[in-house]
Amino acid sequence: MTADSNTLSVSVLGLGAMGSALASALLKAGHETTVWNRSAGKADDLVAQGARAAATAGDAVRAGELVVACLLDHASVHEVLDPVAGDLAGRTLINVTTTTPEQSREIAAWASDAGIAYLDGGIMAVPHMIGQPGSSILYSGTEDVFQQYKPVLDLWGDSTYFGEDAGLASLYDLALLAGMYVMFAGFLHGAAMVASAGVTAREFAAMAAPWLTAMTGEFEGYAAVIDGGDYTVPGQQSLEFSDLGDILTASAEQGISTEAVAMVQGLIRRQIDAGHGAEGFARIIESIKQPG
Amino acid sequence: MTADSNTLSVSVLGLGAMGSALASALLKAGHETTVWNRSAGKADDLVAQGARAAATAGDAVRAGELVVACLLDHASVHEVLDPVAGDLAGRTLINVTTTTPEQSREIAAWASDAGIAYLDGGIMAVPHMIGQPGSSILYSGTEDVFQQYKPVLDLWGDSTYFGEDAGLASLYDLALLAGMYVMFAGFLHGAAMVASAGVTAREFAAMAAPWLTAMTGEFEGYAAVIDGGDYTVPGQQSLEFSDLGDILTASAEQGISTEAVAMVQGLIRRQIDAGHGAEGFARIIESIKQPG
Repeated sequence: MTADSNTLSVSVLGLGAMGSALASALLKAGHETTVWNRSAGKADDLVAQGARAAATAGDAVRAGELVVACLLDHASVHEVLDPVAGDLAGRTLINVTTTTPEQSREIAAWASDAGIAYLDGGIMAVPHMIGQPGSSILYSGTEDVFQQYKPVLDLWGDSTYFGEDAGLASLYDLALLAGMYVMFAGFLHGAAMVASAGVTAREFAAMAAPWLTAMTGEFEGYAAVIDGGDYTVPGQQSLEFSDLGDILTASAEQGISTEAVAMVQGLIRRQIDAGHGAEGFARIIESIKQPG
Repeated sequence: MTADSNTLSVSVLGLGAMGSALASALLKAGHETTVWNRSAGKADDLVAQGARAAATAGDAVRAGELVVACLLDHASVHEVLDPVAGDLAGRTLINVTTTTPEQSREIAAWASDAGIAYLDGGIMAVPHMIGQPGSSILYSGTEDVFQQYKPVLDLWGDSTYFGEDAGLASLYDLALLAGMYVMFAGFLHGAAMVASAGVTAREFAAMAAPWLTAMTGEFEGYAAVIDGGDYTVPGQQSLEFSDLGDILTASAEQGISTEAVAMVQGLIRRQIDAGHGAEGFARIIESIKQPG
């Protein structure tokens, strides 16, 4: 199936912004790339880059020794792949569709039953980062698939393998995405606070990006306290000192929503109310681990 | 009052972790540093570094041409400074206590009435970062004070002046702190998600810190859209695509609180429900600017 030992036939199913970025990186590396999308018109740019557009998902699957699924969600994966399971048998499927860990495990079991070698992936990058520094992709599932195709996977970003449990990459993926979306909300809350004083979002972003980058340096210390299991270790900022009342008051005075900050204040208050006010800020993970 | 043209007499009121770090940096630079704290025992380490411990706040004020207040909150500032306003007259007060913008303006007006030159500061660093790369301190209020004492201020970190409105530094300060606390909650939510699969917080921190650092690179693009006022600009991730249902489901399946992620989902849903689902993610700032 391959033109030479370094060139693979790869098919990409799903040509949203992410699927298109993955296919484009394959084309740049010289792989025989076939693409398919449920709705038409998405393949045109990729065809101009040298891709072959398949008329059906089945045609795409039969054209590739490696099939990459980058679809909307778990339901889409079954809708597209169930009818072509027979064609997938004996091939390799790498599924980078965002799903829950349980859904990843379900698809891995489905693939195993159908004789399909399966690897699950979670992409920690936005589409324009694919193939660029900072792009990281997490994998779990069949280790042989990861090892065999690692040179291809590395075209998209740094590849990390977490283990045979197909759900683990999704769990990491969603945990990191949770951190990202919550951080974005925090950034936008800050931008809304200063907007009321005539500060542009760009001015605020120029300060917030290096500030929050510097503050990611605190994660390791919080993590050491959490893993150590003792929130009374000296030298930590206490929960009582972390009262967010000033931020809530200032937000309300600017006439904006307080919900992002109130969420954190709620996590803090539950620990203070339980008698842990003198302990370190990292203890709010206990509010998250044990919902009220 | 000064031993030579480069040495100042500076008094630091409030010796929590931050006040102590500020005083320590002054001592390292050779300034005549007097320290005072409401409760005893906090000055011992600084005295060992060469500081003089004042018995009363008034003694401390009278010993310094420059007085730095790093107290618990706005009420503490008045409790400590109101009785010594006469001694402060003719001196310079730099107040780095965390307060709301309105409180900063109120203290600036109080200082003006009392004949005290006033600068308000917001410290964007944790105590151990003072004097280290990454420490940034925001100032607003009397520009002459900022210019005259900038060499001293730069001992603590990068100094930025925002204007004569004494509340502006506090507003920026609280906006950046809001971003930080919300980001910390997002990180800890992610750590709680993977903890259920046996992943340590340190393992997760090692992935989350570079990931969230990379994602701060998205702020500028969001800010450009917000400042441009058109959330339909092509190339953005849409609100509909940003549905956090998978993260909520996975969090619930791990038995942890969903509140951090549900907060963001709420901001997203309000924009989708208002008919903006095809527009860019940055639009959630409208949910924050116009509380429901």
